[in-house]
Amino acid sequence: MKVKGFTASAVQAGIRYKDRLDLGLIYSEVVAIAAGVFTTNKVKAAPVLIDMERLKQGKAQAILVNSGIANACTGEQGMTAALATSKEISEQLGIPDEMVQLASTGVIGEPLSVEPFKRSGAELTEKLSVDGFEDVAAAIMTTDTVPKTSSKTVTIQDREVSIFGMAKGSGMIMPDMATMLCFVVTDAQIVFPELKEIIKTGVDQSFNRITVDGDTSTNDMVLVLANGAAENQWIDEDNPEGKEIFSEALLEIFKDLALQIVADGEGATKQVTIQIKGARDVDGAVDAAQTVANSALVKTAFYGEDANWGRIIAALGRSDCFFEQEKVDIFFDDVQLVRQGIAVGGDAEERAQEKMRKDSFTVIIDLHDGSEIAEVYTCDFSVDYVKINADYRS
Amino acid sequence: MKVKGFTASAVQAGIRYKDRLDLGLIYSEVVAIAAGVFTTNKVKAAPVLIDMERLKQGKAQAILVNSGIANACTGEQGMTAALATSKEISEQLGIPDEMVQLASTGVIGEPLSVEPFKRSGAELTEKLSVDGFEDVAAAIMTTDTVPKTSSKTVTIQDREVSIFGMAKGSGMIMPDMATMLCFVVTDAQIVFPELKEIIKTGVDQSFNRITVDGDTSTNDMVLVLANGAAENQWIDEDNPEGKEIFSEALLEIFKDLALQIVADGEGATKQVTIQIKGARDVDGAVDAAQTVANSALVKTAFYGEDANWGRIIAALGRSDCFFEQEKVDIFFDDVQLVRQGIAVGGDAEERAQEKMRKDSFTVIIDLHDGSEIAEVYTCDFSVDYVKINADYRS
Repeated sequence: MKVKGFTASAVQAGIRYKDRLDLGLIYSEVVAIAAGVFTTNKVKAAPVLIDMERLKQGKAQAILVNSGIANACTGEQGMTAALATSKEISEQLGIPDEMVQLASTGVIGEPLSVEPFKRSGAELTEKLSVDGFEDVAAAIMTTDTVPKTSSKTVTIQDREVSIFGMAKGSGMIMPDMATMLCFVVTDAQIVFPELKEIIKTGVDQSFNRITVDGDTSTNDMVLVLANGAAENQWIDEDNPEGKEIFSEALLEIFKDLALQIVADGEGATKQVTIQIKGARDVDGAVDAAQTVANSALVKTAFYGEDANWGRIIAALGRSDCFFEQEKVDIFFDDVQLVRQGIAVGGDAEERAQEKMRKDSFTVIIDLHDGSEIAEVYTCDFSVDYVKINADYRS
Repeated sequence: MKVKGFTASAVQAGIRYKDRLDLGLIYSEVVAIAAGVFTTNKVKAAPVLIDMERLKQGKAQAILVNSGIANACTGEQGMTAALATSKEISEQLGIPDEMVQLASTGVIGEPLSVEPFKRSGAELTEKLSVDGFEDVAAAIMTTDTVPKTSSKTVTIQDREVSIFGMAKGSGMIMPDMATMLCFVVTDAQIVFPELKEIIKTGVDQSFNRITVDGDTSTNDMVLVLANGAAENQWIDEDNPEGKEIFSEALLEIFKDLALQIVADGEGATKQVTIQIKGARDVDGAVDAAQTVANSALVKTAFYGEDANWGRIIAALGRSDCFFEQEKVDIFFDDVQLVRQGIAVGGDAEERAQEKMRKDSFTVIIDLHDGSEIAEVYTCDFSVDYVKINADYRS
């Protein structure tokens, strides 16, 4: 998909990986309105710190992203290196340095060499093309097995507006921004305050509702660049209709990418939705869903296709959510396993196990204590997850 | 080891497992002062609910424990069954029903049949012997690979006092009482308030500082029976010297059993101590140690013998502990890997990896921000952990 006024490119820079794309560039012909959400981890990588500062101006024109090295916990040297890579690309592009957003993903603690960026800067700029986005989506992969992209075109007051997003992430995934990068470009004409608010709300309902392993990262970010090339009526506080259409479309892209991340969770063999129903308050519902979704015992049972609801109720019991055990119902898709806190019995377990053999299923936990609902998206915990993460650096 | 006035026995009752000990009894000739600590999970098994109520009187004379079935999430039927097993054994022993403490460990949600208890009650009572404790330690095992016992004799004001403890647990292990059972018998003469206080303090510094997988259980308990047969000077508020000697000895037994549980963690290949130093406050230090100890990415790196300190610092960064990244030092035993938030470099990683090849090592994280220290004991996260838990019920 093409988004007016945006180009992209990726090259094999040899930053850490060999013989694969590992350096990407996204470029807007004009200065774009830009906003983002960043990791909540107290340890933030150099590019995150630089981006947060630069984004205060609400504008950006390029995103430079590398895989292999996270440039986190690299101190002054890391900061200097990140700024040098920015300088390199801003000169190639002929734009002010502060218009460049930086992103890195990979191993924490190893120094980032500027050399590959210098070597590849010219090639990266020359290769910029409207067809380059899929290459960038591939360049940002680490343990991901597939590139992740999503796009949508909507009509806002008679103008066609395009949105294209890409993401990476498959481990260290947990609500509050996990090891994941997401870049979205759109030709929408939108003011900074509305864009920022829409991104924050959207991230809360998508990327913050997925979990692979409960770990969060030092490098996460969601960046959205809107260059206005669609020339739609400005999306601002006086255009609620345009705002609604745009925010719904962006949320759909966020959710689509978030689910792609979970489905590609390290070693995952199936994608599981944990739905809490009938909760007294939404915070409790989210906490309950996350606690179940992060339980190693629940996730290994998913892997073993064992409808072990005892582990689910035990995880529920250590969450911060209020419930009364004797009111709890549990379903696997439409198969009820637990009624009022007790096993339904009969062939319910066998029928639930059938549901678990699918690529994806939903565990519904009805607390019968209120009307709030929360969903968290996760995957199973497999032998391969351990193998991947025991070997990741070696 | 023998503790005056206590006997024990175990039999193959066929509750769920076949051809192995699965039902145990611990008995005190006289009514003993008794106190305990129970799971903090909101979902509590029937025996836990019964014990908590009965222990309000501060006395007990017997502990009846089975493995195979947890009798959790079993509703009214579970409560009725538990009370029936208690009745069965109290009649056999000729003691009041409320003097029996009950414990169960095993699968959640499956009904407990009283039949095996009726069949085995007489045999269990007849077999009671001073040499029966090791059998009970074996009978309470589930995924444990070894029975866990610990004992100590101390002199309190010229009288010899003996303490013997046993524990089970290897998964669903997490601070705030995990799937673990611990029974301690002692001939110490001690009043209820002191015993209760000593147990609570001791558990906080031992069982609440271990974690295998971050999951907690519905059935956990630590029970201590003190029958006074040693005839030492009463341990009460007027005997601080006796109290100190006894509480130190009990804490040593708790710690010994807690470390045995971690070493036998499901699929564990090594035992790791996470020590936080130089923290501003102790709660933060404990939270930081627990967050690192529970990180799936950190634990898989331990398994892979990869000194991946980046994952450690990323886990630290999502904990509730205050620290400044540029002050953090990280050591593996005596090998410094990180100085002021940055890799030491050179051959530090190789030397750290050598430490990781041992059965046990310590990760020391010095925040240089205060003087508080906390230690949490954990194990690595292996391919076998997943295999064990994917297959546990089948």
